[in-house]
Amino acid sequence: MRIALALAAEAGAAGEVPVGAVVVREGVIVGRAANATRRLNDPTAHAEILAIRAAAAHLNAERLTDCALYVTLEPCAMCAGAIAHARIARLYYAAADPKGGAVEHGGRIFAQPTCHHRPEVYPGIGEAEAAALLRTFFASRR
Amino acid sequence: MRIALALAAEAGAAGEVPVGAVVVREGVIVGRAANATRRLNDPTAHAEILAIRAAAAHLNAERLTDCALYVTLEPCAMCAGAIAHARIARLYYAAADPKGGAVEHGGRIFAQPTCHHRPEVYPGIGEAEAAALLRTFFASRR
Repeated sequence: MRIALALAAEAGAAGEVPVGAVVVREGVIVGRAANATRRLNDPTAHAEILAIRAAAAHLNAERLTDCALYVTLEPCAMCAGAIAHARIARLYYAAADPKGGAVEHGGRIFAQPTCHHRPEVYPGIGEAEAAALLRTFFASRR
Repeated sequence: MRIALALAAEAGAAGEVPVGAVVVREGVIVGRAANATRRLNDPTAHAEILAIRAAAAHLNAERLTDCALYVTLEPCAMCAGAIAHARIARLYYAAADPKGGAVEHGGRIFAQPTCHHRPEVYPGIGEAEAAALLRTFFASRR
């Protein structure tokens, strides 16, 4: 999570919403990314999506079974759906996102009968730092 | 939708789940794709995600305001989330997907207070053909 937080800080410094994500398999990082929707002109370029795509490319596999995803913010519906499709085993996220999250808020993707894979979910690790990054970022935009 | 159905048929012939998507802006196709999760080894490579990314790249814009998305199957949570992030104005889909859809099923993404953009939704156009493609594909795998 420390690396995900560093990626989030880099994204914030570059004018992107500060969120970072890391995919780990057997203790080794196989994918990492920061949110890059502006830089890439890609509305799907959330940190989780980019990290999952990087990990799948790295492992040459469509499914990231045995992988854990660390992300600094509660995933939105798009990213929670991608986590389920990728068969991520464990999801660790830092700050909750009452406004856009879809794990413990909104569509609660993993709780739906239409969700075909549910990762183990561990919220709250690094929460204070992740929330502070987001607060500072949005305060500076107002 | 006819083009999306043709893309879906191509995907099915290539061993991918047969779903196709087209993004249209002012009567012009700005992005098109078929489901390619296997070929690309990318769990996020649903037709909608690829078509949205192609359209955003083509228009050099993070937001696809004024665009319509035509897709042969009810979008899942990942794709519905992407449609909201991309600010797609109108969503046309062919077959409903009670098992994995997230528009009229499951997480009902656009109905959530955490959803920050709701497209107009028009289901059912080309439903019979889209459903037949999926039925034939899955029957051939059993």
